[in-house]
Amino acid sequence: MPVNDHAPVQITAYNWVPDFARGFVRDLRPRWACEEIGIDYSERLFNPAAPRPDAYYAEQPWGQVPVVHEDGLEIFESGATLIHFGEKDERLLPRDPQARMRAISWLFAALNTIEPSMMELSTVDIFAKDEEWAKLRRPGLIRFIAQRLDRLSDALGESTWFAGDFSIADIAMTTVLRQAQHTDLISARPRLDAYVARASARPAFARAMAAQLAALGDTPEPAVA
Amino acid sequence: MPVNDHAPVQITAYNWVPDFARGFVRDLRPRWACEEIGIDYSERLFNPAAPRPDAYYAEQPWGQVPVVHEDGLEIFESGATLIHFGEKDERLLPRDPQARMRAISWLFAALNTIEPSMMELSTVDIFAKDEEWAKLRRPGLIRFIAQRLDRLSDALGESTWFAGDFSIADIAMTTVLRQAQHTDLISARPRLDAYVARASARPAFARAMAAQLAALGDTPEPAVA
Ligand SMILES: N[C@@H](CCC(=O)N[C@@H](CS)C(=O)NCC(=O)O)C(=O)O
Ligand SMILES: N[C@@H](CCC(=O)N[C@@H](CS)C(=O)NCC(=O)O)C(=O)O
Repeated sequence: MPVNDHAPVQITAYNWVPDFARGFVRDLRPRWACEEIGIDYSERLFNPAAPRPDAYYAEQPWGQVPVVHEDGLEIFESGATLIHFGEKDERLLPRDPQARMRAISWLFAALNTIEPSMMELSTVDIFAKDEEWAKLRRPGLIRFIAQRLDRLSDALGESTWFAGDFSIADIAMTTVLRQAQHTDLISARPRLDAYVARASARPAFARAMAAQLAALGDTPEPAVA
Repeated sequence: MPVNDHAPVQITAYNWVPDFARGFVRDLRPRWACEEIGIDYSERLFNPAAPRPDAYYAEQPWGQVPVVHEDGLEIFESGATLIHFGEKDERLLPRDPQARMRAISWLFAALNTIEPSMMELSTVDIFAKDEEWAKLRRPGLIRFIAQRLDRLSDALGESTWFAGDFSIADIAMTTVLRQAQHTDLISARPRLDAYVARASARPAFARAMAAQLAALGDTPEPAVA
């Protein structure tokens, strides 16, 4: 497992999150990319219940994770970190111009077309679940996501991955689709269900997940210093 | 105005949209990019009230606009089209590695951190505005967006653009922030308000807007053939 305190790549992450977020924090994306191409990285961990150090807002405007550092490069937004690792290694982003733009198109499809409605689903099902509006909103939102996923399933068709070989588009799409795993939205669509299972069965995914969970520990919420 | 039927770049767009969407359709992003670097493009226009041609779903999985074609390259997702034009011309995306990744980080910040809540705002204020849940949801959503925009304003500080010189990040961020222009979310934040005004005052923005409006025409909804 290439977590290594002396690695030139550093990823920010948390040392604790509530149970529902374990395995779903977005540092999973750059961790997974590193694991796919065998790059060591170190971690800089924050307590999410405490304010982030003031200086961190200059790195990430909302104080969120992940931020990636590498040899003087500083990158925020998980999508941007995926572009960075893709450009380092063609196993994550092909070099042929059309194949490359196809993977980048699918990366944005995951993060700008599918993920926004998954974020709304998290609000409705987790953060606001006891509010009246969330109960009233839910059926329409589920119908909307279902339509999007029907098209997504059609677009995948019999392909293994979204853009030719496995790429950063699949890291983004898998981590986005997993956000609905508490519903039957994915399991009701055999192609998407098999896709998420296939991606999650990659050894690099398993190592990234293990590393995130190890960083989160299994302790209760850390005290705020 | 570089709309030119014989141009090697083609952008898909609509020939009509409801009033609330005029000037806000996402083909504005690649149009604006082309105008900034003086690239001619042609248009392929659809009637949004009619089903898209079946073959179009192979280009854009949800049948949406924009799709960009150029010399055999086919690109969907407006964010991906911005990366493409940025890579063509350093006036849209700097070549220095850190400056480039900074612009790409801000591009994703616009499309994956700010735009998702703007999409929810459009649902609440436009598509579902008469529904009970939308009225109940609105105050919390406005508070959430306000917090995000406070940090965004801090991050912009006294800078003119988000990532050094004007870049694709500003095309994305401006078009995202404009989605709240029916509220006081932007006008209440002087730095963001001045930023959107500055970006919209660029001649390339004005030409892109004029071209979108010209394509939309000023006729009522076209009949479905
Ligand atoms: N669009 C950002 C989102 C980052 C994000 O939402 N990070 C979450 C963890 S998954 C976070 O740090 N939340 C804590 C907070 O907002 O204070 C990205 O993809 O990097
Ligand atoms: N994430 C996509 C969104 C594209 C999108 O929402 N397009 C809208 C126009 S702004 C559309 O075609 N809507 C009509 C429809 O969904 O049928 C992108 O940025 O390209």
